[in-house]
Amino acid sequence: MKGERQDKAVYRADKVKAEVVEKLKATGTRIVQDLRRGRWPSVELPLRTTKNIVYDDALRQYVLGPKKAVRTLSNIRHVRPFAQMVWLMKFAKQLIESGKTSTLRDTYYVALGENVDFEDQDESDDIILELESVLGHPREDFNIFPEERASIYGDLVIEYTIPGFRGNRVDLSTHPDGYAIGPALTTAEFVRCGAEMAFVIEKGAVFSRFVEERADKKFKALLIHTAGQSPRNCRKLIRRIREELNLPIYVFADADPYGMHIASVLIHGSALSAHIKQINVPDAVWAGVYATDITKYKLPSMKFTDVDEKRLSELVEDPRYQTDPWRREVKYFEKLKRKAELEAFSKYGLEFIVKDFLPERLAELTKR
Amino acid sequence: MKGERQDKAVYRADKVKAEVVEKLKATGTRIVQDLRRGRWPSVELPLRTTKNIVYDDALRQYVLGPKKAVRTLSNIRHVRPFAQMVWLMKFAKQLIESGKTSTLRDTYYVALGENVDFEDQDESDDIILELESVLGHPREDFNIFPEERASIYGDLVIEYTIPGFRGNRVDLSTHPDGYAIGPALTTAEFVRCGAEMAFVIEKGAVFSRFVEERADKKFKALLIHTAGQSPRNCRKLIRRIREELNLPIYVFADADPYGMHIASVLIHGSALSAHIKQINVPDAVWAGVYATDITKYKLPSMKFTDVDEKRLSELVEDPRYQTDPWRREVKYFEKLKRKAELEAFSKYGLEFIVKDFLPERLAELTKR
Repeated sequence: MKGERQDKAVYRADKVKAEVVEKLKATGTRIVQDLRRGRWPSVELPLRTTKNIVYDDALRQYVLGPKKAVRTLSNIRHVRPFAQMVWLMKFAKQLIESGKTSTLRDTYYVALGENVDFEDQDESDDIILELESVLGHPREDFNIFPEERASIYGDLVIEYTIPGFRGNRVDLSTHPDGYAIGPALTTAEFVRCGAEMAFVIEKGAVFSRFVEERADKKFKALLIHTAGQSPRNCRKLIRRIREELNLPIYVFADADPYGMHIASVLIHGSALSAHIKQINVPDAVWAGVYATDITKYKLPSMKFTDVDEKRLSELVEDPRYQTDPWRREVKYFEKLKRKAELEAFSKYGLEFIVKDFLPERLAELTKR
Repeated sequence: MKGERQDKAVYRADKVKAEVVEKLKATGTRIVQDLRRGRWPSVELPLRTTKNIVYDDALRQYVLGPKKAVRTLSNIRHVRPFAQMVWLMKFAKQLIESGKTSTLRDTYYVALGENVDFEDQDESDDIILELESVLGHPREDFNIFPEERASIYGDLVIEYTIPGFRGNRVDLSTHPDGYAIGPALTTAEFVRCGAEMAFVIEKGAVFSRFVEERADKKFKALLIHTAGQSPRNCRKLIRRIREELNLPIYVFADADPYGMHIASVLIHGSALSAHIKQINVPDAVWAGVYATDITKYKLPSMKFTDVDEKRLSELVEDPRYQTDPWRREVKYFEKLKRKAELEAFSKYGLEFIVKDFLPERLAELTKR
């Protein structure tokens, strides 16, 4: 482990779960008290609209502004979503206390089975987002996990906290294809780390290349494969690697508007998750492939499609793309109108990306 | 390990690689000899058209029929693909000998870098398929792997054969989120297995549910998460679990035309892979969710979309759907025109699928 663990930053599964249960109980108790005293129960909800999203300099992420709505049982139109949220609070508490996990879809079906009226999954997804904003916790903290699986490989020993595995340790350097990041790994605690940085990689092929070329050994790096846009629990895990292990994080994605945005969302946070603090990684560094790399490395490239052009024009307006390197690269894309994949470095042989590109890029980024 | 390992069926990474290298050398030597003797070199290619696909009763899969094409340098139009294949043979041999892996896309970029003229990736993908049919080996045997990652969990100890890890063993029951099935796991050998069956699961949420409800312990089962249509290397691994470990295989997918087809392709093989033998699992059993389960278990269901209807009408004509349970379920879908997801069992609580549905279904299938 690099340096001493600071109590503040270190993730403790039990502590997080206890916090959520406390908040659930407090909210529930308030509702019951109101009812007993003959008052209409109400809940304050931060407004989750793009107009209520502001950049928080201290947190270095987009967060919800001060606008709130009050949901109250005195309003007949609020009765339905109020009841749905109370049910969800009960379900969340059950999940935590039984040590079971669920997904957005699963939760919808459980609700159906318990005769909670949801028109469709969109409606239950929405209530889950609302509960996140009421609790100030991502849904993973009340055991609702994404379906997608990122994976990780490298010199890190973890200890599980889930029932049946609590206290077991696993060394993440033993299986070179990577360990799926599901509920068990997300809630595991870090025990020992020999790595000195972490590489976050969009593509499975390039993750395998990094393993084969022993990037984990050469750079003492943890390797994380996001399989496209990183799921939220993977973003949170990367943040913990940054904070608890104090490792620099480098993000590698395709040189196109979508790849750029994979890096940007990990670093700046997504608009959709602005109601949840601290699942982005502001210190992470976008390490390529840049638009300018297409020219610099003479990479095989493809012409932008209409979809690429449209996406790029959105990024031009996006507040997250108004400073360098983002602005510089968006401008270059506008001129070049071509894109390249991470795998394009294979033009120079399979070794090139780890043997030549990686040290060059790391030298540039640490000099800056 | 259940029973004795039979030498015939057991996968030995070194043996497979040596076989491929031998075939590559033999083909190359023939070409050189022809040139030296002043003859036009030629290669025989099985015709990979739907008209040349027949069901092989002994192999229990669709295979290419007897029609072949001859590719010869004496035909000016054959020169380009002939040269491309010779380059690919060289690249495949290099991959095997250096212990490195690649993907379809990666291979395209390496070709570009070595000035081998491919119009686009489609053209290089096609040559890779041709080399598979010439060698009679899937591309994974010459180290070209899919980008997608399935994962596995359960009581199985494997031993790696890849460089840097050769001889290392890992117990696949230690990380409950699963081990990614990449190049290392695909080429690993089986050392010891305590499981007595294997469950193949389309959905990540349901895989997690099976782990949480300890289906691996209750049924002594390996759990395999395919993340949708199982990648070919995952199908091959499941076949090895069937053959080498002698385990029954049960496949669980959504009750819709796509879910059905995920089970069907695993069992019967895909038309696209008819030129490769033995990457399907004829003994695997489709275990649901059936169309009839929607009624039987009163599952929450959704109306077919136009796309579902179109897909179903294709399955009606498909030779793989002419016997039960396939025919029966296709007919029921035609009547019902509704679909349900694996997660729909959560209507009866999170435990139901493992505690109630699984034993009922296994009892039905083993009685049959």
